[in-house]
Parts: sequence; structure tokens; C-alpha cells
Amino acid sequence: MATLKDVAREAGLTVTTVSRVLNNRGYISEDARKKVADAMKKLNYRPNEVARSLHSKKSNTIGVIVPHIRHPYFAEMISNLENAAYKKGYKILLCNSQSTKERAEEYIDICNSNRVAGLIICSTDVPVDIFSGMDIPVITIERALDNATASVVCDNKSGGQLAAERLIKADCKKLLYLGSSSSVEMPAHQRGTGFKEICENEGVPCIEVDPEEASYNNMTYNEWLETVMKEHMDADGIFASSDIIAAQAIQVCRKLSIHVPEDMKIVGFDDVVLASLTTPQLTTIHQPIKEMAEIAINLLDDAAKEKLVAKQTILPVFMVERETV
Amino acid sequence: MATLKDVAREAGLTVTTVSRVLNNRGYISEDARKKVADAMKKLNYRPNEVARSLHSKKSNTIGVIVPHIRHPYFAEMISNLENAAYKKGYKILLCNSQSTKERAEEYIDICNSNRVAGLIICSTDVPVDIFSGMDIPVITIERALDNATASVVCDNKSGGQLAAERLIKADCKKLLYLGSSSSVEMPAHQRGTGFKEICENEGVPCIEVDPEEASYNNMTYNEWLETVMKEHMDADGIFASSDIIAAQAIQVCRKLSIHVPEDMKIVGFDDVVLASLTTPQLTTIHQPIKEMAEIAINLLDDAAKEKLVAKQTILPVFMVERETV
Repeated sequence: MATLKDVAREAGLTVTTVSRVLNNRGYISEDARKKVADAMKKLNYRPNEVARSLHSKKSNTIGVIVPHIRHPYFAEMISNLENAAYKKGYKILLCNSQSTKERAEEYIDICNSNRVAGLIICSTDVPVDIFSGMDIPVITIERALDNATASVVCDNKSGGQLAAERLIKADCKKLLYLGSSSSVEMPAHQRGTGFKEICENEGVPCIEVDPEEASYNNMTYNEWLETVMKEHMDADGIFASSDIIAAQAIQVCRKLSIHVPEDMKIVGFDDVVLASLTTPQLTTIHQPIKEMAEIAINLLDDAAKEKLVAKQTILPVFMVERETV
Repeated sequence: MATLKDVAREAGLTVTTVSRVLNNRGYISEDARKKVADAMKKLNYRPNEVARSLHSKKSNTIGVIVPHIRHPYFAEMISNLENAAYKKGYKILLCNSQSTKERAEEYIDICNSNRVAGLIICSTDVPVDIFSGMDIPVITIERALDNATASVVCDNKSGGQLAAERLIKADCKKLLYLGSSSSVEMPAHQRGTGFKEICENEGVPCIEVDPEEASYNNMTYNEWLETVMKEHMDADGIFASSDIIAAQAIQVCRKLSIHVPEDMKIVGFDDVVLASLTTPQLTTIHQPIKEMAEIAINLLDDAAKEKLVAKQTILPVFMVERETV
């Protein structure tokens, strides 16, 4: 592989000049720039980012820790994070905790060893105390971590309220809230809080049922949903805390010959790709995943440059009307 | 941040001994190992992988290039690649070409600058000539690239044959094949070849229709599908070249009051999470994504160690019966 020296020789310039061109430092003539570019092209030279990282003590890599990659919400989040990072000149080191504390810890060690510029945490598996002594920005998305640099969440409570209002307006008389499997404190729990608050105010009965942790990990809620719905055959409206639960609620309704939306109205949460791929298509609360990802990357970038950043950013949600209400 | 020197001082050993422990080189007593481990823990010391990469000329990072992250197939593939890489001690640098040649090229440059151990290409946007002069293994998955080190595909043709046999056995009299939008030569094109071959042999009429490139990029096939199905109201069986197309075929059937599976039988391809989230659930051809990811990582690892590797690996597919046939 060609070295900086080879480029200098080919361009007929000193190593110092070539280095100045590469790092865009000091005055460089257009002529010198062109010579270096031509020589680099001819020799197929690529600057060594590894050496650069060693010099600057930090790489331009961001560690992203998610509990699952194939879960539609995280796939969508990773996609948007990658896009936002790319625009700012960062790369993504993808870390999948697979909902285990050990793997999350191990990945944080790997990120540290690779001198990442910062961490974005979308997983609840990361132990809080692990960040003490780390001098890089840590941004959480939809996660509560006391000692993070900044957190980005959507307005979960208002999402729950919107769902309740919509179902009650559609004349539902008994509602089910399909909650979260997580025992850890999470911003998403506010979805239920907002939902139940409106139900109570409006005097509409509402029952909360929470799935097992295992359902979250393997994304399979059908059996649990069938039991729940058979127990509450008089329910006529469902608010699911994620689109993936809502999609399976549609399936169970079909199995039990309950027509959606005629006999059962369903509202999901997230508005991921899946929401428009179900039959019928899901009415759901739109979480601004794209904007949340962009803000997370911007916060990380600002914090890395030692700018003051907002401790918490809450983005608005809205309802997307499709076919299940 | 603590340095190697600090660890040596804390452990009461020389820097050379600590370095030998860290790199597992030469004879080291159990006592020395324990002292180093204790000192590292106490000082929160993490070895600098960046420096290590510079020394070894290669990092333990694998560049993974996909056209889309949020597409269910690629989300599933990335998830399995990450898992397989983790087990072998590799990290994933995630590159999203977003179906553009420019971005694919730019990402390959970034991978080069970061001295990746190898590349895994799941995208057709990568120009073939870019690999000339690169001395790292390049593994393709479901992509045709002449100068790649090794390619991993599933048995696409046999998948198409299985789909045709199943639909004909279910008494379908006129079949539609919903093909690929890609004009580039791809292994997936064999799905149609196998399907049409069986139809011809059995004397069952089969019409191939291919979506626009735009549909692939935004994952939206509904409008196109509605036109196609209205043109062929006498069709009673569909083979879709991906589950995401099949999911939308179910939606369009509902819109046109065509009952699935009574009046229209549908077979998908991929068997991603989506296939079990549609209503009714999709009957589909299972692509062994997990095994393909594992083999790709193993091939890359072997090739990086200069072992001889198989030029092409073809994995078997099978049919998963659910509710659409």
C-alpha cells in the first residue's frame, strides 16, 4: 500500500506539504492541491484513519448500543442514526446487547478500546455505573440513565393520551392497554400513564396487561394476546405500546373472528414500516424516529466539541390514521 | 485515562511484563497475571485498540455494506452478521449505500482508511473495479461480483421451483410472478427462472411483472400491485420475490375484496420477521439468513488468515407453510 512518502515523491512535494493538504492546514496553493490529488489517485493512496485516531486520541466512530437489531423499531432507529452520522462525518460501530447486561458491558469496553467519539444508548441493559470515569458523551434515546450527557425521548405521555381520546371518540366502551414487558424504569411507561389518565377522566374502563420479558426478546406475543383477549371478550378497543404488539393483536382478532375495526379498534405506537404493512393497516402514534436520531447525533457532536447541550430533549408525537380505528 | 505504565506501577511489574500479559506472549506466571488483572480493574485501564491496529496494520473491524438498513431483509441480515462477528471477536462498521454508487464508493474508502479486516457486501451499488488493488477479503451475500473473494447465496432457483410446485398443487390455474426491480444481474433473478420453468413444464400460464426501482427504495409497492392485479383479475396465485412485496399483495387483495387464501394464494420469499406478522400469516420460502451470515463471517475470517476458501457457497432453502396458501 502506498505511503505518504510515496505520494510526496510522486507529487514532487515535501511530506510536510502533502500532510498539510490532507489535513487542510495552513496556506496551500491550488497547484499543490491538484498535484497531491493526482498523486493520491495514481497511487491509490488512502490516508490511515487509524494513525489519525491515535494522534487525536479519539476516532470519528460512534458506538450505538441497541437491544435488538431486527426489531422494526431499532432497525428504523439504526438506519436513521447511520444517515445522520454519515452527514456529520461519523461512522457507526454497531453494538447489539441482545438484552443482556454482560454483552452491553463488553461492548462498552470495546467502544472504549476503540476510542469512540461517543456512545448512543438505546438499550436498558447498560448498567448506570459503567459510565463513571468515561470522558466521552453518552446520549440516550428513549431510555432513562441518570448520568448520561443528554437524553432524547418522544412525548410518550401525550401519545398515550391521543390514543385514548381517539378510541373513546370512536365510541369504545371497554379498553385494553397492552403495556411493556420491562421492569426497568423507561420513558415508554408514560404511554400507559397518559392513556389511563384520559380513560379515568372520561369514565371509560381500562385494563392494563403486561407481556413477559421473553415476548419482547423473541417478538412473539400471539399466545399471550390470545389468552388476554379471551379473558376480555367484552373489550372493543386496544392501545398497544408498540406496532409489533398491535400487528399481532390484528392476527389474534382474525383467529377469534373479531372484525377489525368493526368490532375491535386498535391503535399502535411507533409508526415503523410494519404499521403500513399489516392488513388492515395500523392506526398508530407516530414517533419522530428520524428527528430523534438526528438530534442525538447533533447532541453527541456538540458535546464532543465541549459545547453546552440540552440535558433532555422531548419531541412531539402525532396520530397517523390508517385502517384499524 | 490510565496508561500501561500506570498499570505496571500499580502491579509492581515492568511494562514489558504487563505488555506480555496483555498480548498473551511468552511465559507469564499466574501470580503476574492476577496482579495485572487487579491493577487494570483498579485503574479502569482499557488497552488501546487503535494503537494495536496501527501496529498490526489491520483492525478487527468488518465493513458491512447494505443498500438499506430498515428493509426487513437487511435488518435481519445485519443482526445475524453482528452476532456472528461478535462470536469471532470482530466488530461491525455499518455502511448504508442507500442504493447510490457514490455513497458505496465513499464508504469503501472509509473502510480502507480504517484498515478494516474485510468487507461484506450485500449491495449491488458497489462498482466491481473498486476492489482492484485492495488486499482484504471481500465476501458478497446474494450479490454477483466477479472479483470478490467469496460469495454466499441461497438456492434461489430451487426456491422458485418450490413456490411454483406448491401453488400448482393448490390447484392454481393462472399465476403471477412479482419479480425484482433490479436491472443489475443478481442471484435473486433465479427465483423467477425456477418458478417459470416449473410453470412451463406443468403447462400453467405464468405472467412475470417487475416493479420500478423506486418501489424497492421506498418499499412501497401498493399502487403498482393494484394496477397489476386489476389487469389480471383471473389470476389465482402469486409468487412474490420478497416478503415485503407479498405483505402488500395481501393488502391489495383485501382492498379489491379478493379473499386470501380462498380466491388468491400467495407465496413470499425470505421468511423475515414480517412473514409472521401479516394477517393472514405468509406462506414463504425460507432463506437461511442466520447460516448465510455465519458462513460469510467465517469465510472472511479464514481468508484474512490466508486460508483457502470456497469461491461460492450455496445454501438450501425450504418452504414454510403458514396461512396464505
